[in-house]
Amino acid sequence: MEEKKIPYVEEEYDVVVVGAGHAGCEAALACARLGLETIIFTVSVDSIAMMPCNPNIGGSSKGHLVREIDALGGEMGKNIDKTFIQSKMLNKSKGPAVHSLRAQADKMNYSMEMRKTLQNTDHLTIRQAEVSEIITETTALENGKEIQKMTGVKTFSGAVYHCKAVVLCTGTYLCARCLTGEMITYTGPNGLQAANHLTDSLKEHGIEMFRFKTGTPARIDKRSVDFSKMQEQKGDERVVPFSFTTNPEDVQIDQVSCWLTYTNEKTHEIIRNNLDRSPIYAGIIEGTGPRYCPSIEDKVVKFADKDRHQIFIEPEGINTNEMYVGGMSSSLPEDVQHEMYRTLPGLEHVKIVRNAYAIEYDCINPNQLYATLEFKNIKGLFSGGQFNGSSGYEEAACQGLVAGINAAMSILGKEPLILDRSEAYIGVLIDDLVTKENHEPYRMMTSRAEYRLLLRQDNADLRLSKKGYEIGLISQERYDWICQKEVLIQNEIERVAGVKIGANKEVQALLESYGSIPLNTGTTLTELIRRPELDYEKLAPIDKERPELPYDVVEQVNINIKYDGYIVRQIKQVEHYKKLENKKIAEDFDYDEVPSLRIEARQKLKLYRPLSIGQASRISGVSPADISVLLVYMEQMKYHKGNIK
Amino acid sequence: MEEKKIPYVEEEYDVVVVGAGHAGCEAALACARLGLETIIFTVSVDSIAMMPCNPNIGGSSKGHLVREIDALGGEMGKNIDKTFIQSKMLNKSKGPAVHSLRAQADKMNYSMEMRKTLQNTDHLTIRQAEVSEIITETTALENGKEIQKMTGVKTFSGAVYHCKAVVLCTGTYLCARCLTGEMITYTGPNGLQAANHLTDSLKEHGIEMFRFKTGTPARIDKRSVDFSKMQEQKGDERVVPFSFTTNPEDVQIDQVSCWLTYTNEKTHEIIRNNLDRSPIYAGIIEGTGPRYCPSIEDKVVKFADKDRHQIFIEPEGINTNEMYVGGMSSSLPEDVQHEMYRTLPGLEHVKIVRNAYAIEYDCINPNQLYATLEFKNIKGLFSGGQFNGSSGYEEAACQGLVAGINAAMSILGKEPLILDRSEAYIGVLIDDLVTKENHEPYRMMTSRAEYRLLLRQDNADLRLSKKGYEIGLISQERYDWICQKEVLIQNEIERVAGVKIGANKEVQALLESYGSIPLNTGTTLTELIRRPELDYEKLAPIDKERPELPYDVVEQVNINIKYDGYIVRQIKQVEHYKKLENKKIAEDFDYDEVPSLRIEARQKLKLYRPLSIGQASRISGVSPADISVLLVYMEQMKYHKGNIK
Ligand SMILES: Cc1cc2nc3c(=O)[nH]c(=O)nc-3n(C[C@H](O)[C@H](O)[C@H](O)COP(=O)(O)OP(=O)(O)OC[C@H]3O[C@@H](n4cnc5c(N)ncnc54)[C@H](O)[C@@H]3O)c2cc1C
Ligand SMILES: Cc1cc2nc3c(=O)[nH]c(=O)nc-3n(C[C@H](O)[C@H](O)[C@H](O)COP(=O)(O)OP(=O)(O)OC[C@H]3O[C@@H](n4cnc5c(N)ncnc54)[C@H](O)[C@@H]3O)c2cc1C
Repeated sequence: MEEKKIPYVEEEYDVVVVGAGHAGCEAALACARLGLETIIFTVSVDSIAMMPCNPNIGGSSKGHLVREIDALGGEMGKNIDKTFIQSKMLNKSKGPAVHSLRAQADKMNYSMEMRKTLQNTDHLTIRQAEVSEIITETTALENGKEIQKMTGVKTFSGAVYHCKAVVLCTGTYLCARCLTGEMITYTGPNGLQAANHLTDSLKEHGIEMFRFKTGTPARIDKRSVDFSKMQEQKGDERVVPFSFTTNPEDVQIDQVSCWLTYTNEKTHEIIRNNLDRSPIYAGIIEGTGPRYCPSIEDKVVKFADKDRHQIFIEPEGINTNEMYVGGMSSSLPEDVQHEMYRTLPGLEHVKIVRNAYAIEYDCINPNQLYATLEFKNIKGLFSGGQFNGSSGYEEAACQGLVAGINAAMSILGKEPLILDRSEAYIGVLIDDLVTKENHEPYRMMTSRAEYRLLLRQDNADLRLSKKGYEIGLISQERYDWICQKEVLIQNEIERVAGVKIGANKEVQALLESYGSIPLNTGTTLTELIRRPELDYEKLAPIDKERPELPYDVVEQVNINIKYDGYIVRQIKQVEHYKKLENKKIAEDFDYDEVPSLRIEARQKLKLYRPLSIGQASRISGVSPADISVLLVYMEQMKYHKGNIK
Repeated sequence: MEEKKIPYVEEEYDVVVVGAGHAGCEAALACARLGLETIIFTVSVDSIAMMPCNPNIGGSSKGHLVREIDALGGEMGKNIDKTFIQSKMLNKSKGPAVHSLRAQADKMNYSMEMRKTLQNTDHLTIRQAEVSEIITETTALENGKEIQKMTGVKTFSGAVYHCKAVVLCTGTYLCARCLTGEMITYTGPNGLQAANHLTDSLKEHGIEMFRFKTGTPARIDKRSVDFSKMQEQKGDERVVPFSFTTNPEDVQIDQVSCWLTYTNEKTHEIIRNNLDRSPIYAGIIEGTGPRYCPSIEDKVVKFADKDRHQIFIEPEGINTNEMYVGGMSSSLPEDVQHEMYRTLPGLEHVKIVRNAYAIEYDCINPNQLYATLEFKNIKGLFSGGQFNGSSGYEEAACQGLVAGINAAMSILGKEPLILDRSEAYIGVLIDDLVTKENHEPYRMMTSRAEYRLLLRQDNADLRLSKKGYEIGLISQERYDWICQKEVLIQNEIERVAGVKIGANKEVQALLESYGSIPLNTGTTLTELIRRPELDYEKLAPIDKERPELPYDVVEQVNINIKYDGYIVRQIKQVEHYKKLENKKIAEDFDYDEVPSLRIEARQKLKLYRPLSIGQASRISGVSPADISVLLVYMEQMKYHKGNIK
């Protein structure tokens, strides 16, 4: 007897993107813009590009990521330029390596603008549905090994979407549960429906899952805050846009303020007295939280000697009275929250609109991925964002972009995009994820980058736009401008080096006005620019032949001259790094054949399968000595092979 | 040994409103505006005043409700005036009784504007939390009977909010589940978290629950629609605002279009072939659906002879490409939906963004309520909206307003607001709910009102603003204007009655130009206005002393003169109705004492406990003969009592 088959919807696309958070949006836009028929799934269309936690984009090192996303042709920078309500260049008193742009977003507008962009992109289809299964087939690869290959996904309603590649960007939704003290609810962020089925299907396909957690503070009613007891934090007088394509004049808007207040001993006492009721300390939470975005209870415990912590009160948007209590995420019970927030100056009578909570969710061990963000064991399956074990909107977006680009490149039969550690923060982030052991939500930090002085936010376009152009996401016009900009910068640096400055009266007066030591003898303009108290622009009056140049060219000229020494040194380091990086290791390299390799190193190398000596050297558990052993063996192999042939 | 008590948040308010849908928003605003400390709970702050189904406000009889809400000091009319994207006065070719205003809303803006209003209303606190229990205490009433009295509510997190009155407006969220063919998800509308705990608490307090259902059509991608195959439906050239307070000039905006298409035999065939897979016909759905908002499968079954049904394609907003498929709600499986929508002209290649679905939820039997919308068995507990067994945004909003007002009046020790059937559609709606048997979601319809010619949308302000003023929700200024308007109308009607019109050349020419029979002899202006082909404004040229009057006054003068005969007749009917309505029945009237009352009638009367003979007469199962028996008995009682004293 034949079983009655229930009919279902069946459709065909090039790429399926699962999730429309910050990662999924970039992935889907990249694929669709490259002409591939793309469908993006979300549990709720109303939550596209939702910001479930902090109401800002950018910040230390994260601002770099946004600039890099923009240079590669992503959307995040453009979207925040359209919807920010305050903007600030952070760390301006420090060196250019750590300058970072951060903007407060109008959350609702941010989400709506991104949704609008998605809705009006050709080749892109949006579907509200829960993807519950991935579908693969087993194929023989060239080298004879069998491998799984993506063929599609299935939704909870039973519909099947055939495709050539899938990008998973499920964020914090997989088997999510939210915790506030003793209260547990089985939902995704902000009460949205969790996605409870996909994890099982992934596990069935041999994917190793992690359980991570993160948390968010309360949202409070602006009308219940006494701002007179806080310090006002204004935006920059002159706003710099995130996107290299945004006209700077368009972002000079009326800005809103944030406010700074502090916790105190009373706050800490309440928290300490209630630690036993925190689901983390009570052992209810299974997931691992982000060390670098600690909850307030973590801070109080870990930094027991600090008598106060900074707390930023930030608006959630223009059209809402809700404000975000930055720095005070928590999963303590509701009654403790009410008490502890009220100990802060200005929050004595605060009304909480939404409680703080922690969220636990399933994500993967990212070591299962290549640096292309494709799964090693499933061809055509890519992933990005919080699902890969990271944390943060910008971290999510840049991975989504790379995963999307590489899904597209694989379908189009083009070279994948792999950014290395010397090219981009994105390269650092992905390399860290795929090669390092990562047992907590990964957050970008400037300290993670070795070549910080090269990977500045100000030169992201010069570093990456050409790649974006080759991929097909950067227009000819933008590409041409980058080429021209390079020439302008180079020419100006050379010209300046040739400008002789004599010790005349005008020069000495100018130097004196900046507290700079007068000249004994003639010098070059370059030398003067290098003095800490001077810069390219300050010296304009004595640089008579100076051409008129756009601001971003001037900025590059100045930085390149001032930090030339350091930059040259880092470039040398990069060359060394590249050498190791260029020593490729075959995918099927047999580590068991390498004599005298320590067992731990052998295990780790077999597990991670690094594609280069560089990658191998960054695997935790693989020592420099192990690398030497490996290098010697590889040299012998080459020699041996050469002899045989 | 003492048990360790878990601490919890404890706060005190005058009024607790549970739910921030259309009912809850009106209830909370009314209470807060009357100066009562009010807290409103919602499962999600982001879904305040969300429109989970059709993207419009108003329409036949619903437009009347909105005008009445506005005249009483509610918010709905103002809010749609701020956020509509198309507006139309329906039935303009018919009599003024059925003229109805309907506006397409920008759903996102509608919700955001209402949220903004709530957030900026004094005495109003918004809390995102699920209310899971009501708390009562038992008190002795004056007449010695014991009765429950509200004292507060408890949230799922354990917090307790003490209060004097509670208004329940939980809409479609209680124990909600959504159905699309074989697929069931346990969520509220649009994937939002359901509220699964309150029902139990209500049942424990002796409240009888119903299970109802409703449904919504798919949302589709505008870009996949071929509008050339549809009829365009434009807005009115001159838009009339909903609110009597909106400056008409402010609503003359650029409007967007809706589109009309039709189902056909192919559509119906697909539906018929798949009826066995509909959860309703397969018996999976337990709830009762609205007869007057049938799903497309219901329409195809019930009107089997109709070869097509009208389908309206309506934008969901300005900033979205999603469109609503009006008239085609369904709970058929996804694959059937895909097929059936594609049979419509213009939708051949349609892309569905969100599937159609049915939703089942818990609500109450509204017969448990007084006309004040207070529960008969729990003092201080009020309710409004879908929770009371109604359907529709406007139906919800007007009940929320009345429930909120009466919660406030009870706390302030003022007279409750009870609108009768001759005063307002709101009166008809509430009277129907509390006295008639209601086994499906109740929808407002003009045919339900007996005194349609009196209850027009154009005179809602004249009918109700004074009540709004007495309650305290209408300003002195607005009240003064209503008083002045009444005088202006009355004076003008009287003046016009005295204007003699002779059969002169100018008059005859004017009459002729409108195809009106020439005069044989002199007449009054009033007589001429009554001619169907003429009206007050057309006769301006021959009314030399006419004063300049505002448009809304002119409108009233014209209608009152033209329909004077009918209006007078209805006023007479109302007098008769009022007589019965004024025959009050004591709350503790003992029906068992009435001899020769039929058993069924006795049971129904004991169940519903009508407060007047009028109410008693509308209870289904109570016949005119029963009413006579009752009246005779009551007369005897009075006589008897009189004799005793
Ligand atoms: C409570 C909370 C606290 C946070 N705290 C911090 C913090 O302190 N610092 C910080 O940097 N970051 C924090 N974040 C993290 C930050 O919000 C995320 O990193 C970021 O949103 C991740 O973006 P994403 O695109 O990876 O995923 P998300 O933004 O979570 O988007 C996931 C998308 O996938 C969809 N989806 C999931 N599963 C399915 C499925 N099976 N089928 C269809 N669609 C699916 C969802 O609908 C959604 O559209 C927090 C997040 C939350 C929720
Ligand atoms: C799928 C669907 C189809 C519909 N179809 C039609 C139609 O065809 N025609 C028509 O006229 N109308 C239709 N409607 C009905 C219309 O949407 C509702 O009548 C209207 O929204 C009801 O307003 P309300 O205020 O009563 O409830 P809702 O708008 O449902 O609001 C309920 C509010 O209560 C909150 N809430 C619920 N329980 C709790 C709790 N325990 N604690 C805290 N907060 C709580 C929710 O968060 C929400 O804010 C449909 C609705 C849905 C969902």
